[in-house]
Amino acid sequence: MRECIFCKIAAEEIPATVIYEDEEVLVFMDIGPIIKGHALVISKKHYDPITETPDDILAKLHLVAKRIAQAQMNGLGADGVNIVQNNGTAAGQEVSHIHVHVIPRFNNDGHHWNWNAKKYDDFEEMKKLADKLRKQL
Amino acid sequence: MRECIFCKIAAEEIPATVIYEDEEVLVFMDIGPIIKGHALVISKKHYDPITETPDDILAKLHLVAKRIAQAQMNGLGADGVNIVQNNGTAAGQEVSHIHVHVIPRFNNDGHHWNWNAKKYDDFEEMKKLADKLRKQL
Repeated sequence: MRECIFCKIAAEEIPATVIYEDEEVLVFMDIGPIIKGHALVISKKHYDPITETPDDILAKLHLVAKRIAQAQMNGLGADGVNIVQNNGTAAGQEVSHIHVHVIPRFNNDGHHWNWNAKKYDDFEEMKKLADKLRKQL
Repeated sequence: MRECIFCKIAAEEIPATVIYEDEEVLVFMDIGPIIKGHALVISKKHYDPITETPDDILAKLHLVAKRIAQAQMNGLGADGVNIVQNNGTAAGQEVSHIHVHVIPRFNNDGHHWNWNAKKYDDFEEMKKLADKLRKQL
């Protein structure tokens, strides 16, 4: 994955401001933060999307994200944290290498997600989608 | 946690359209979907926020979320998936019981997250925040 920017960061071919590292995971500062202090937790090895990421790596990414969230609360005084993991350009993913955004949030930080909740036409519509999902599980 | 709506759903005191259940985790349809097919993965036991959630439960929630993401791709034809876990009202969390949003995304589904990336004033500003985070790890 020579052209993957996160692979290059993991290989230290591109610099990043690293805050945590172990054998499988790297955490560095997002240079385009939603809120300052925003960190990215990535797998050192290239996987994408979530469905192609091994269970142990996926679990590890989120356990490290939990530690980063705690660090944002304790170290930056964050009041809350968003954990976001996007898959696919349809979902807004910009780098095709699994990564977890850990975004510190502060009361009155001025950011409000456009959480535009929709409604189902009726219960039947929701039930049909639920049936389709259940069949895959 | 008698007043927690997700605890009541887990206790079957409030109905929900369940698509998956095991001893620790429950998955049901979000009745206010960002995109239709949006599911919520919750812990049956009450934990909140992420930093108070045991590691094994947090890992489990995300491994189940992975399965739901695959089901959305295979069963609904989703092109992508957002995995979102909000902590605190500052982060937009509405129900104070840990839950993972699994949101199916389709090319041209009309939703675009307001991913308003900011910039640091300079490298020093980012480095100072990184130092504060690193000290907590």
